Amino acid sequence: MTVNKLNQGKQPGSRKGRGSGIRAGLFKWTMLAVALVVQQAVAENSGERIAQKGAEQPGAVACASCHGADGNGNEQAGFPRLAGLDAAYLEGQLHAFNSGSRKNPVMSGMAAPLSDQDIRDVATYYAGLQPGSHAEAPAAVSTAAGEQLANHGDMPNRGLPACFKCHGPGGLGVGESFPPLVGQPYSYTLAQLKAWQSGDRSGEPLGLMKAVASKLTDAETESVAAYLASQPLSAEDKPASQQDSGNMTTPASVKTAEAGTTSGTSTPLHQGPVEPGREPGAEGYFEPPERGAWPDGKMGEIVRMGEAMFSATSTHPASAAYVGNRQTCSGCHLDAGRLANSAPLWASWVAYPAYRKKNDRVNTFIERIQGCFTYSMNAQASAAGHPPDADSDVIVGLVSYAYWLATGAPTGDRHMAGRGFVQSDESATGFDPKRGEAVYNDKCAVCHGEHGEGQFARGQVVFPPLWGPDSYNWGAGMHDIKTAAAFIKLNMPLGLVGPVQKQAKLSDQEAWDVAAWMNSQERPQDPRFNGDLAETTKKFHASKYDYYGKLKKPDGRLLGDGAPGR
Amino acid sequence: MTVNKLNQGKQPGSRKGRGSGIRAGLFKWTMLAVALVVQQAVAENSGERIAQKGAEQPGAVACASCHGADGNGNEQAGFPRLAGLDAAYLEGQLHAFNSGSRKNPVMSGMAAPLSDQDIRDVATYYAGLQPGSHAEAPAAVSTAAGEQLANHGDMPNRGLPACFKCHGPGGLGVGESFPPLVGQPYSYTLAQLKAWQSGDRSGEPLGLMKAVASKLTDAETESVAAYLASQPLSAEDKPASQQDSGNMTTPASVKTAEAGTTSGTSTPLHQGPVEPGREPGAEGYFEPPERGAWPDGKMGEIVRMGEAMFSATSTHPASAAYVGNRQTCSGCHLDAGRLANSAPLWASWVAYPAYRKKNDRVNTFIERIQGCFTYSMNAQASAAGHPPDADSDVIVGLVSYAYWLATGAPTGDRHMAGRGFVQSDESATGFDPKRGEAVYNDKCAVCHGEHGEGQFARGQVVFPPLWGPDSYNWGAGMHDIKTAAAFIKLNMPLGLVGPVQKQAKLSDQEAWDVAAWMNSQERPQDPRFNGDLAETTKKFHASKYDYYGKLKKPDGRLLGDGAPGR
Repeated sequence: MTVNKLNQGKQPGSRKGRGSGIRAGLFKWTMLAVALVVQQAVAENSGERIAQKGAEQPGAVACASCHGADGNGNEQAGFPRLAGLDAAYLEGQLHAFNSGSRKNPVMSGMAAPLSDQDIRDVATYYAGLQPGSHAEAPAAVSTAAGEQLANHGDMPNRGLPACFKCHGPGGLGVGESFPPLVGQPYSYTLAQLKAWQSGDRSGEPLGLMKAVASKLTDAETESVAAYLASQPLSAEDKPASQQDSGNMTTPASVKTAEAGTTSGTSTPLHQGPVEPGREPGAEGYFEPPERGAWPDGKMGEIVRMGEAMFSATSTHPASAAYVGNRQTCSGCHLDAGRLANSAPLWASWVAYPAYRKKNDRVNTFIERIQGCFTYSMNAQASAAGHPPDADSDVIVGLVSYAYWLATGAPTGDRHMAGRGFVQSDESATGFDPKRGEAVYNDKCAVCHGEHGEGQFARGQVVFPPLWGPDSYNWGAGMHDIKTAAAFIKLNMPLGLVGPVQKQAKLSDQEAWDVAAWMNSQERPQDPRFNGDLAETTKKFHASKYDYYGKLKKPDGRLLGDGAPGR
Repeated sequence: MTVNKLNQGKQPGSRKGRGSGIRAGLFKWTMLAVALVVQQAVAENSGERIAQKGAEQPGAVACASCHGADGNGNEQAGFPRLAGLDAAYLEGQLHAFNSGSRKNPVMSGMAAPLSDQDIRDVATYYAGLQPGSHAEAPAAVSTAAGEQLANHGDMPNRGLPACFKCHGPGGLGVGESFPPLVGQPYSYTLAQLKAWQSGDRSGEPLGLMKAVASKLTDAETESVAAYLASQPLSAEDKPASQQDSGNMTTPASVKTAEAGTTSGTSTPLHQGPVEPGREPGAEGYFEPPERGAWPDGKMGEIVRMGEAMFSATSTHPASAAYVGNRQTCSGCHLDAGRLANSAPLWASWVAYPAYRKKNDRVNTFIERIQGCFTYSMNAQASAAGHPPDADSDVIVGLVSYAYWLATGAPTGDRHMAGRGFVQSDESATGFDPKRGEAVYNDKCAVCHGEHGEGQFARGQVVFPPLWGPDSYNWGAGMHDIKTAAAFIKLNMPLGLVGPVQKQAKLSDQEAWDVAAWMNSQERPQDPRFNGDLAETTKKFHASKYDYYGKLKKPDGRLLGDGAPGR
């Protein structure tokens, strides 16, 4: 039974599915399947044995004695749930106890006797178990600030991303680097946050958790831990390893969760515990209305729908039909379009209608947003095949949301501080995709994937694809290296830039180079492509910051030659 | 030859055409035609004789001795042109010299000996002459303030309408009450303005010229007279009596004149001579950007196009195809959408998107404007048959113009002073179309016509039709009696309300009654009409301020029953 159960997780075509190579004739397929089942059964047996009875080596006691027979931890004692966590993540943690990058006197002793194979086996075993849901928040700790921080963070004041921005919708975990945050005991999560802050836990990619956790006050740390503990794992949620990252549909549970995060019940951060001197607006940027301070009635409904679509454009039931890739508006307009220097929507709203060289005419705000669908969302490849109509709920929702964000902003002000991205000139050494590749692998791949393919969870985009068929197309503003460098410089890597992104993590050179690498990759065709690459290049891609029709792909053809779509 | 020439002016169907009853068989038609020609030839001969040689009575000298053999006046002496002026207007003036309501020692003597028939004959004669163009502005007087006042007036500060608002495009005259202002000697026009101010000239409808001229400073009076003298009569312009009021096309000369009035060359009024204490903004209302302070480049072009369409919606080459009646945006939004308490566009812009009960959804500003076309402009009966598309030049132009007017206004402010119309509750005696009819005939008909048919000149709408096929339809906001009363109260009669319309001319009771009269008339069908009057009434016209489907027409049918269009 456990073998069958494990096999459920190996869906053909899934990123981790070891059976994905099974494509030959019936005989070959049958033989391979038998071999795999045997191999996995062995791993299972070894992992299960260590978990339930301990390893053969002296001192390696049964994991189950603390983490429970079902692997779901021990709430009272604060022992974490292991069931359903990503195998690679669990494996990494056991090695971290051994190396000392994760300091824990008990676990160091437990992990020390295990061989690499033991570690792999036990991690695989726990990854296959069904997660239970038993965590609870302590009544004495308010979850209000935690709810706000987990769902929205505090980007404007602290460059603090939402927990769920990386750990995925509902905090249910993403891939091997971002474990589930919910369904763990309060005391465990609190201890981990404190460990990141103190340095007792480290070794995570880019030092992200150290950077992020250190931005929390003590009261916030408790509130976040309490909120996370208060969020039950949905009964419908499969273990993270069984998630189908290619699934474009949104499960009902996620839709519900999403509606919850945009409801009027969330507490404005202003009323939560905010450190002195961190009052919103201290940086001198325009302040959009607080989340949750929605307009009344149907206007409020459409504004909230607008925010929901903005944050999940490719999967929201209304907007998904017009998105031909796996992008969201908030992928380029961080913090749901609220963040200064990240092309905030409040600055865009007051700047339209405006003349755009791109189509050589004055564009209304609606036409501008339709342009986002045409290019950044590659609407041509969507179910509808075109951007949403001007009077559709999708456009009305997005427009109303932008308008609401701009409440109080002066009409026609084209010079609001923090508008657009902050451009920097390239250095004397220019920009170089080869140099950029190294930057990418070092600092970007952990989230966006080794091949720029992005990461997904519960059907939602967590880290948007940067190239390939699910990325923005060759007509999008982001394909311009200068624009991409400007976005990247002050906004990436998420969580490592300073308050309102004033402290950049990447040098100008790194930003330019990694932008060049990203934009030296193939992506969907420019919808203005007229069938002639040279002509289209001359007409729309003459800029020196544009590789379309100029740089050669590995197959010897030029970028744009044979690009999918149109 | 003169007979033929005179006949040119009697076009069948024109408002003044005496031959309009000629519809019977060939014989009857021929006989009548002969009779008319004979009758007119007699009138001609009598009028021409008086003009060129004087009347038979003692003291009635030849008009030509002062007004010139061709009737085009005498520039040096300041004697006015009579050629091509409206016959009824000329007739009225000769009677005015006799009655003393127009005081002029010379003309009183000249008019006194003339019989009523003489006066009619000589007026008819001069109306049929071709106007010449010989006026010139004196070099010493600046025309800058005059240009601004003639084209745009100063509604916000003084409730002062543009000269051309009533005297028609280019000041070429409208009907019998609004003579041409251009093509007259400077000294003549100056003397007339001073005579209105002093009371030496009076008796005009509603005391309009007294009210308007008294709002001018001495310097402005001179500048206006100089500007009007500087504007040549176009060679293409026919005498006013030969204008085809039914002509929907815009002559090239008017298009040029219109472009001129919206060009960047007009002088902002702020720099002209403005009376102390009348600085713009003194009333506490939002100030849109000054006319002429257009944005640069293509944005400026489309904003100017927007203003031009706003002021001449039914005839502008771009917007005409979407207008199924003879209305302009500026008919309800005075001063080209700039005026407080007249539904100014700067207040509308910042208030959209917004929920509208009318279609039970949140409307973008674009959808709102498309609604104006559907209802106020009755687009269903237009050449296109529907409102302009969201990305059309018409919509982009109007939207950009509204956006520009709102420059600096706070996004989302739904409480700007002067927004919309100022509503008043009806009195204990309610509202009554019968009482309203008397108000209408007394105070409205001189401009809007006895039958609410409006007045037109050079193909342009001067006074919009208030009912009938060329008016707004049964779905327009203005068909609501309360809304119409609110508009009328502070905005009508034009020129008689005070600065930013604070001094109303009509009592609340009069405004309500005349609104009831106007909206007790038939007009184009509500486009939401579903074929069943009772059902449509119940669904969309349940308000007690709405006569649709409730009040009986003279033919015994209910309003809306058989209304033209759909």
